[in-house]
Amino acid sequence: MTQGLPEWRITREPYYRPVGDELAQFRQAHARRLPLLLKGPSGSGKTRFVEHMAWALDRPLITVVCHEDMTASDLLGRYLLDAQGTVWHDGPLTLAARHGAICYLDELIEARPDALVALHPLADTRRALPLERKGELLQAHPNFQLVASYNPGSNRALQPATRQRFVALALAPPNAEAQAEIVVQESGVTPAMAARLVAIARGACGSRDSQDSQDHADAAVSTRMLVHAGQLMREGAAARVACDMALTQALDDDPEIAQAVRDLVEAHFT
Amino acid sequence: MTQGLPEWRITREPYYRPVGDELAQFRQAHARRLPLLLKGPSGSGKTRFVEHMAWALDRPLITVVCHEDMTASDLLGRYLLDAQGTVWHDGPLTLAARHGAICYLDELIEARPDALVALHPLADTRRALPLERKGELLQAHPNFQLVASYNPGSNRALQPATRQRFVALALAPPNAEAQAEIVVQESGVTPAMAARLVAIARGACGSRDSQDSQDHADAAVSTRMLVHAGQLMREGAAARVACDMALTQALDDDPEIAQAVRDLVEAHFT
Amino acid sequence: MTQGLPEWRITREPYYRPVGDELAQFRQAHARRLPLLLKGPSGSGKTRFVEHMAWALDRPLITVVCHEDMTASDLLGRYLLDAQGTVWHDGPLTLAARHGAICYLDELIEARPDALVALHPLADTRRALPLERKGELLQAHPNFQLVASYNPGSNRALQPATRQRFVALALAPPNAEAQAEIVVQESGVTPAMAARLVAIARGACGSRDSQDSQDHADAAVSTRMLVHAGQLMREGAAARVACDMALTQALDDDPEIAQAVRDLVEAHFT
Amino acid sequence: MTQGLPEWRITREPYYRPVGDELAQFRQAHARRLPLLLKGPSGSGKTRFVEHMAWALDRPLITVVCHEDMTASDLLGRYLLDAQGTVWHDGPLTLAARHGAICYLDELIEARPDALVALHPLADTRRALPLERKGELLQAHPNFQLVASYNPGSNRALQPATRQRFVALALAPPNAEAQAEIVVQESGVTPAMAARLVAIARGACGSRDSQDSQDHADAAVSTRMLVHAGQLMREGAAARVACDMALTQALDDDPEIAQAVRDLVEAHFT
Amino acid sequence: MTQGLPEWRITREPYYRPVGDELAQFRQAHARRLPLLLKGPSGSGKTRFVEHMAWALDRPLITVVCHEDMTASDLLGRYLLDAQGTVWHDGPLTLAARHGAICYLDELIEARPDALVALHPLADTRRALPLERKGELLQAHPNFQLVASYNPGSNRALQPATRQRFVALALAPPNAEAQAEIVVQESGVTPAMAARLVAIARGACGSRDSQDSQDHADAAVSTRMLVHAGQLMREGAAARVACDMALTQALDDDPEIAQAVRDLVEAHFT
Amino acid sequence: MTQGLPEWRITREPYYRPVGDELAQFRQAHARRLPLLLKGPSGSGKTRFVEHMAWALDRPLITVVCHEDMTASDLLGRYLLDAQGTVWHDGPLTLAARHGAICYLDELIEARPDALVALHPLADTRRALPLERKGELLQAHPNFQLVASYNPGSNRALQPATRQRFVALALAPPNAEAQAEIVVQESGVTPAMAARLVAIARGACGSRDSQDSQDHADAAVSTRMLVHAGQLMREGAAARVACDMALTQALDDDPEIAQAVRDLVEAHFT
Repeated sequence: MTQGLPEWRITREPYYRPVGDELAQFRQAHARRLPLLLKGPSGSGKTRFVEHMAWALDRPLITVVCHEDMTASDLLGRYLLDAQGTVWHDGPLTLAARHGAICYLDELIEARPDALVALHPLADTRRALPLERKGELLQAHPNFQLVASYNPGSNRALQPATRQRFVALALAPPNAEAQAEIVVQESGVTPAMAARLVAIARGACGSRDSQDSQDHADAAVSTRMLVHAGQLMREGAAARVACDMALTQALDDDPEIAQAVRDLVEAHFT
Repeated sequence: MTQGLPEWRITREPYYRPVGDELAQFRQAHARRLPLLLKGPSGSGKTRFVEHMAWALDRPLITVVCHEDMTASDLLGRYLLDAQGTVWHDGPLTLAARHGAICYLDELIEARPDALVALHPLADTRRALPLERKGELLQAHPNFQLVASYNPGSNRALQPATRQRFVALALAPPNAEAQAEIVVQESGVTPAMAARLVAIARGACGSRDSQDSQDHADAAVSTRMLVHAGQLMREGAAARVACDMALTQALDDDPEIAQAVRDLVEAHFT
Repeated sequence: MTQGLPEWRITREPYYRPVGDELAQFRQAHARRLPLLLKGPSGSGKTRFVEHMAWALDRPLITVVCHEDMTASDLLGRYLLDAQGTVWHDGPLTLAARHGAICYLDELIEARPDALVALHPLADTRRALPLERKGELLQAHPNFQLVASYNPGSNRALQPATRQRFVALALAPPNAEAQAEIVVQESGVTPAMAARLVAIARGACGSRDSQDSQDHADAAVSTRMLVHAGQLMREGAAARVACDMALTQALDDDPEIAQAVRDLVEAHFT
Repeated sequence: MTQGLPEWRITREPYYRPVGDELAQFRQAHARRLPLLLKGPSGSGKTRFVEHMAWALDRPLITVVCHEDMTASDLLGRYLLDAQGTVWHDGPLTLAARHGAICYLDELIEARPDALVALHPLADTRRALPLERKGELLQAHPNFQLVASYNPGSNRALQPATRQRFVALALAPPNAEAQAEIVVQESGVTPAMAARLVAIARGACGSRDSQDSQDHADAAVSTRMLVHAGQLMREGAAARVACDMALTQALDDDPEIAQAVRDLVEAHFT
Repeated sequence: MTQGLPEWRITREPYYRPVGDELAQFRQAHARRLPLLLKGPSGSGKTRFVEHMAWALDRPLITVVCHEDMTASDLLGRYLLDAQGTVWHDGPLTLAARHGAICYLDELIEARPDALVALHPLADTRRALPLERKGELLQAHPNFQLVASYNPGSNRALQPATRQRFVALALAPPNAEAQAEIVVQESGVTPAMAARLVAIARGACGSRDSQDSQDHADAAVSTRMLVHAGQLMREGAAARVACDMALTQALDDDPEIAQAVRDLVEAHFT
Repeated sequence: MTQGLPEWRITREPYYRPVGDELAQFRQAHARRLPLLLKGPSGSGKTRFVEHMAWALDRPLITVVCHEDMTASDLLGRYLLDAQGTVWHDGPLTLAARHGAICYLDELIEARPDALVALHPLADTRRALPLERKGELLQAHPNFQLVASYNPGSNRALQPATRQRFVALALAPPNAEAQAEIVVQESGVTPAMAARLVAIARGACGSRDSQDSQDHADAAVSTRMLVHAGQLMREGAAARVACDMALTQALDDDPEIAQAVRDLVEAHFT
């Protein structure tokens, strides 16, 4: 039933605007099935990039959002009770390894170290997954590849034993032109309006006290928020109202930051 | 059986008195199915507003009160044992995504970060819910929308990666006139009595040492408490007794605060 | 089988001696089914008062003693395995809401905040209980009322969002005359002996260093302890022995406090 | 099958040497079925006393040793899976309440407060046990009595709400004569040898730095240890060897304390 | 099937070289079935001694290695699901008590206090095991004896209420002659080589900074390590290589300690 | 079915380049089935070495990656529900002990002490595994051997009682020549390119502030990373790009370290 994993195949090309040579680099790592680590802040397009590559390489894509309560069993699988007794159900990592999908571990750094050690035998030359509870030693499908992402600005760090099993790629944030292009594409506003929204976003970054550049990247107005503002305008919201909902209120609860963003909006829409 | 979710439809218009342009703003976010975050202190009418909008937009409404022990499984669903073996039961988020309801996550900020990451794929352009334990990738129904609320005065903060997936709306507390109107509507007392109760509530706010404005909003005499006082009077309680039960005793255990509220009540009922 | 909940009906009038106007106040809150919070120290008769009112109003009474390990499932219900598979069993709160009982949550403040949020939708105008695990939205029976009690001298505090859903009533401790009446009624000693016991109890309160009045109330000789002393005397124990068992030894392990109480007993029985 | 609880009846009189009027006091509390709290250090004979009284009153005795991991379900009961589905199994407290046994909670103070609140409705005039998970409100059998013990020297304290439901009795440690009598009775050594062992025990108490009298009681050479020494002698061990095993090595690992005890033994056996 | 517990009988005499009068002392405690506590550092032969005594007394031996996650259920037993429903499975302590084995609790001090209280009724004159979950009060078999061991150098301490139920025996480490005899017996090297190995072990003890004598005992080169070195030599390893693997590398990771041990080895094999 | 454990046999010789006399040392420990501990930093080839030895000795190899959430049951086995009721499933350690495999515990030091005590009876002369939950005392197969590895630079330490049951072997990192040989063999680059990559790796070690030598070993550019770089080049990546992905980005997120590595790469490829 899961042969070929049709449910996990991406049938329409996901829109992705490259910012460097990342398409070729992903292909080179994929050719050797090397585990690949994508580094970049929240909203930098990591998830969209992986979706695009899974489509381009014609591979099923199984995504797991990592979190602190995720156990090794959540990745590997477990026994469930059936009319015939207990039956093993593959977890997403096992499913991907068995059928040759790309397994994308989003926010890898949020996972507990003990869940991550379960990845080690798959992420080196063994390419095997010992399913201890099932008593099976699963040899990964030749097409299987492990991809993971994380935000290097997080407080947590990956163990060297995990990290060194991956080759890595840093995704740079899009420049102003690329960002405006994305806003036009995803919200339907005019290029001129998109440019104004981008200018506000870049102004907002400058107007905030940023403790360090990473912190800055995280708490900045992301491309996604600009797309939201554009979408609300397309539904008839005034530019000020759309920016208040999508940028000012969504960004922070601090009244001073809110006022600074409102002033910026005001400056661009008078 | 859950097709259309008749049990979760609101059949009578819930009373809601708008304080600004929030009705239109909710409609604009709903038109694009953007995840919407409502900000406001306890008792500011967030829940009633969402009920009103679900009625106005003719959508089923599934409410989840978030708390620290809520797991991702509580939102997504789980396997339960049946005469035929284990059967999957959709959780409230899955139910809403599958059948096109508004899923309202009350007190979002109380949820653990790992429960919140389960929302991410539904709250961006993917609008998909990976049910890892079921091995299903659920594509959300076109009508599905995510709405959440929280009290910005809480000590906890949302992760930027969660927060930036939402557009946001701050609900202002009603002014004196609006508040009196609500008390009349909900308790059945006369406008004059409602005005007196509102005056006591506003006096009580002034008489307390408030460390900051947020703290103030939380611990103040809410509209709900005034409605309670009115209801007790309608059942024959003397005004002083009704205010003692609904305002003084319900507000706090501190004897000084209690005495200050009693003095205020005394001043308005002599 | 649980229709009407005959097992939870109180068939004989529980003895309760009112100390103020609490009988009428309970009736007024009940008339509107407002959630009611009873405040008072351990042993002040809160439980007996609720039993009396359930009898007087002819409602079944379902009591839940709250504690730190009580989960939302303990209140709402859970699936249990049966010969036909898993069957849902209503928890006490659900049972009361479904069949129109008074649900009495004793020591509400001991419950974890996450168990308490399960009460919120029942404790406001919605009067509904979302049973997420069952996929049912239970509308409360018209007779259902929520009553809770707590000791305001505890270190813990209720969240405003919980507290403001209730109207509240403080139960004063009985005066000396009322207390003696209770001791006579419940133990069978003569009014003269009851008066002596009450005098000892009041003396014991005075003889202790009380850090604050609340602490005092908690650690004082309660009416229940005087009843115990009376009962032991009726079984043939000498007054000194009965007081030693029911008052001195039961009150505290501190030798100085014990000696002070013994001196008081001695003074009243020479 | 459990009607009358024959398995829990004590058929031979357990040896117990009273140290005061505790036999009558237990009977008086039992006549009114008052919950009874026994206070005394480890090894002071609390358990033996309860066994003796259960025999004397001809009641089954169900003993529960409390500890920090004991849950309310361990006391009340739980559902277990059977060929016919889940079947309820009474816990020891429920069993005792249903069939009229004495339920003895040894080391009550070790139990978690949330397990203790489960006792409250049984330990006041209601004498009822709400079995929430079973949906049963069990009225206690007329013969049921709750007895508990604890060591007042422990660091933990009982909540007043728990403690004040009991009448209490402090068991004094036996004097030298009584202690020697017990050693003769239980080990079979001669009265002269028993007297020597008692003298060593009392010397050992004096030779130690005791921070307070309670600490002292706990870490002292108990009657049980003297009985052990006597039993080893009866099996052919030399007095010095028996004392080394039963007193010195069993008491503490501190070499100075060990040497002091050895010196005492030496002094009594030269 | 478990009648007589043939699987747990020891059929060949385990090699044990006594260091004092411990064989007689064990027999005397066993004659009265007194609970016996063996004290001694890791590697002092406690386990071998118990195996030897079980063989000598012709009793089955059930060993439990205590640890912090061991629950009372791990000792007592639990219900397991079978084709006929749930069936009770005796835990190792219950098995031993029911069929008259010696139950040996290795590293008793590692167990949690709440698991240890489950031992109390078996470890005093009652010799009974209340299996609360099964509703059985098991009277121990006349042959049953409880034996436990612990390392007195551990940071943890036994509760007096547990400790005083045992008689105790300290096992001294073997002297040089005895140690060499064991090495010859267990590895097959010549007495001369064994003597050299013992000399290295004793030198290594002297060359280390020992904070206290207990610490010293724990981290020293144990008899077991000397046996390993002898065994490697018998397999053809050079003396230096065998000592490096069995002594130096196995003892510690500190390079200074390693060098000191290597120097000692060098001095004995030139 | 698992007789002989064909799934766990290694059929092709795994490439392993010895750095010392470790092949003979492993064989000597294996001849006596002594538990063997391999010490060395992440990436030093411990896993490959064990795979090679299992192949060379013709033994099945069962690998367990230890982590903090691994329980004793994960090692020993558990009951699972089947059509016929519960059936015991051997865990990996039990499987290895029963059928004579080498059980390799990778990262032993990550396991919790209570999981490790389960190893003790298997790791001394008893060679027995008490399966308490199954009521079986499993005598290990004559071919069974326990092998474990850990990184001595970790913060955690093994308990002496665990550690002293093993003989130990430290694996030195390969020298430059050996390392280049491995890179050629595993990636397919020319010896000249491999030498350049090795030179970069050794330069990178020198350019970093290493707090201590162990820390240094862990965070250095490992042989595995050089192999990755070579593999990317073989897929067409430019040398600079391959080194950026496999070395610079994979090593650390610190911009200064990254720049230093980039400078080194630049120096070797101009």
